[in-house]
Amino acid sequence: MSDRVLTHLLGERAGFLDRLSDFVAYPSVSADTTYADGMDAAQQWLMRRLSALGFGNVDLLSAGGQSAVAAEWIGAPGAPTILVYGHYDVQPPDPMEKWDSPPFSLTERGSRLYARGVSDDKAPSLIAIETLGAFLAVEGQLPVNVKFLFEGEEEIGSASLRGILEKYRAELDADAMLSADGARWRPDLPTLATSCRGNAGFEFSVRTAAKDLHSGRYGGVVPNALHVMATLIASLYQPDGRIAVADFFDGVKDPTPEQRSILAEIPFDENATAQALEAVPVGEPGFTWLERNWLRPSLDVNGMWGGYTGLGSKTVIPNEAFTKITMRLVPGQDPDACVVAVYKHLQAHCPASATLTFGAKRGSSRAYSLLDNHPLLLAAEETLRSTTGRLPLRVGIGATLPVASIMAETLGIETVMFSYSTADEDYHAPNEFFRLSSIDEGFTGWDDLLRRLGQQSPDTYIPFRRKRSPINLGSSS
Amino acid sequence: MSDRVLTHLLGERAGFLDRLSDFVAYPSVSADTTYADGMDAAQQWLMRRLSALGFGNVDLLSAGGQSAVAAEWIGAPGAPTILVYGHYDVQPPDPMEKWDSPPFSLTERGSRLYARGVSDDKAPSLIAIETLGAFLAVEGQLPVNVKFLFEGEEEIGSASLRGILEKYRAELDADAMLSADGARWRPDLPTLATSCRGNAGFEFSVRTAAKDLHSGRYGGVVPNALHVMATLIASLYQPDGRIAVADFFDGVKDPTPEQRSILAEIPFDENATAQALEAVPVGEPGFTWLERNWLRPSLDVNGMWGGYTGLGSKTVIPNEAFTKITMRLVPGQDPDACVVAVYKHLQAHCPASATLTFGAKRGSSRAYSLLDNHPLLLAAEETLRSTTGRLPLRVGIGATLPVASIMAETLGIETVMFSYSTADEDYHAPNEFFRLSSIDEGFTGWDDLLRRLGQQSPDTYIPFRRKRSPINLGSSS
Repeated sequence: MSDRVLTHLLGERAGFLDRLSDFVAYPSVSADTTYADGMDAAQQWLMRRLSALGFGNVDLLSAGGQSAVAAEWIGAPGAPTILVYGHYDVQPPDPMEKWDSPPFSLTERGSRLYARGVSDDKAPSLIAIETLGAFLAVEGQLPVNVKFLFEGEEEIGSASLRGILEKYRAELDADAMLSADGARWRPDLPTLATSCRGNAGFEFSVRTAAKDLHSGRYGGVVPNALHVMATLIASLYQPDGRIAVADFFDGVKDPTPEQRSILAEIPFDENATAQALEAVPVGEPGFTWLERNWLRPSLDVNGMWGGYTGLGSKTVIPNEAFTKITMRLVPGQDPDACVVAVYKHLQAHCPASATLTFGAKRGSSRAYSLLDNHPLLLAAEETLRSTTGRLPLRVGIGATLPVASIMAETLGIETVMFSYSTADEDYHAPNEFFRLSSIDEGFTGWDDLLRRLGQQSPDTYIPFRRKRSPINLGSSS
Repeated sequence: MSDRVLTHLLGERAGFLDRLSDFVAYPSVSADTTYADGMDAAQQWLMRRLSALGFGNVDLLSAGGQSAVAAEWIGAPGAPTILVYGHYDVQPPDPMEKWDSPPFSLTERGSRLYARGVSDDKAPSLIAIETLGAFLAVEGQLPVNVKFLFEGEEEIGSASLRGILEKYRAELDADAMLSADGARWRPDLPTLATSCRGNAGFEFSVRTAAKDLHSGRYGGVVPNALHVMATLIASLYQPDGRIAVADFFDGVKDPTPEQRSILAEIPFDENATAQALEAVPVGEPGFTWLERNWLRPSLDVNGMWGGYTGLGSKTVIPNEAFTKITMRLVPGQDPDACVVAVYKHLQAHCPASATLTFGAKRGSSRAYSLLDNHPLLLAAEETLRSTTGRLPLRVGIGATLPVASIMAETLGIETVMFSYSTADEDYHAPNEFFRLSSIDEGFTGWDDLLRRLGQQSPDTYIPFRRKRSPINLGSSS
């Protein structure tokens, strides 16, 4: 192969690992303000690297929340303009004690790199940055116009991303978005995700007395906030696993026979997958694993706590209990309406002996579905076919990339998820990792795709541009 | 009054407060080994004080757990021998942020002294110690023989107390026990508690997968440990508030009409009590507040946790959830049998998708009930009638003083609870306090009672000595 850009990239692998090591060392945890310094440091590092590679207009874009990092190169008149997306924020490292190596220190073991955020989304983002930078270094130009947007709130529901896109609509305008986030489904099969579920979430608490009470002095006569909380959580599900919340399924369509048959043809071993997780599959009766995960909504308690949780025992009747809850939504569901439905359910089931309080609401996002014949999707399919030798399967994502629906609603453009992370890389759990082999795969894929897009006319994208929605920072119509 | 002992005590009030301030400054939290230094320091302080007051054989008694502090004065031949009991360990201070002043710094506000352990049981214990010490200082002798026992595991179920009593049976032998622990029921009414509930408890956990899983990638297809835990906890109660555990009520007798009518005559305002707690009364249908609290068993979750409990949100499906549970037991219930019943219930209700694990078991104790005409009870009643001007009511305690049943089973002696703490003093919650007025009341009461006991013959106690049970560190027959 005479691709000098790719040769340059593959020769620079040690340098890439050094830079990735620097990037993951900044604890850019957006969920917890005690990591504010880590967020700042990751932003600054990213801006320095983008400048060093020759990109212009390197800047912080803010709409009240965590700033996004932007940069661009727009020297390819007549070629499409591609918005390249990633995120520099990461999940919290807790529980710290379950990590086999420090979460913010890049550690190579076997054929894997371990660190918080290495898979979601620092290595995939950096692969995109370095590949595009290599074009500038080797060829002095890029095949397409590129705008970068790295957000800092992906892990907390992209609360102010919509505001950023509205505020910087002109600066970020593009023909389509190519996302370095949105993991590949699995390592053994080339796939392209054409849909993802939406999400919503909130915290709530119950209170049953002015203070914790002694379990001897008051046991049997006053309510216990943890008993109430347990009853409320249990009430959210029917015994068969179906979500029991009235109105939650409003707008949800049953899968069509076509959808079901497409999913049934995807090679997938439910039992082997469950065994690897040491989990017994559960869920809504009448659906397969893939149907449940890609086409049906879910509702999960992410954290619950109350009373004494330290060592030993403390004989209190807790007066407060707390829960964090999130849901994954499918087309037809409105995130705000779903939050209201769950909350109304909790209110209806809360006994008179407890006070229910609605706490912080997460940023939310509708489900997203990409149009079948979008030119960026077709190009990405060709790239994967060419670089892997196999036609990629079109699959769904059970998780949420809020950016896709927000982009469609604000900039009116579609998103193709083209990350080189893989969904088994424990990216919301301890010992998050990234496969070493994905680095070269990523360089190769981005190089190939950029060259293909350089052959397209921007006009190809016009029929796929959506009418932008009016500015709306809350729900969307 | 020409009582020079009492005059001495009332004149030494500032010195008493200084000593109490020193005593509470040691964070003697038995539930948490990180406080081991505080336990040691409190032990040493207590031993120094007992020696300084002139008591002999000051020693640490240990049977594998936290040591108890012992001391004695046995220079009154022909008088009864009274074992004076208290404890120097305290509840954990958590949640720290709810304290209005530092928990281990004695703080006077209004007519109250605030500190962790000030009410339970450091001030009541110190009142007993100082009163008895004042007899030695002023009169050179005590009216009765006295043995002190201050244990260090009261707040964690007195796990090794039985072992200590068996091991030091001869050294601790006495005619009856007078407890400086076991709070007065309420501030407006002189009472003597003649019964208390037993207790038992354990921790358990559920596990649903090898690790926390991403709520998008796996939402709807794998079990959630917190959902399982909530369902298990909810299953422990019937919707009407009755405990739903099979076999839990084995051996529990319904209250007799006599018991119910005695309780009905006690002035007690359920609504006012509930309002003061900002709680709505709940509990087993068909029983009054006092019946529920004194004559019926209860079951409370003291702490529950799992998943992400930090700031912000983290979209995990938790693979583990944890619960601490304790129960209060009444006569007829065997603590070990009750633990087994609850655990069997949990096993029976645990779905196949979760693994249930039995964790640490608390020390347990049977319920205790004092014989109606015990000479120490009659003397204490006379003391309260004489010092308060009102005949004290005989009442129950919903909480547990394991020492009472353990004393009866090991040393064969009965216990009278004669503490000058009051049950509303938040002793298992933040801002624990002790009324300043209780100090003088305590000096007066202990002084009066000691003098009365000095008039009794040891023979009076013989008919009330129980046959000692065989050594048994676990359950009792």
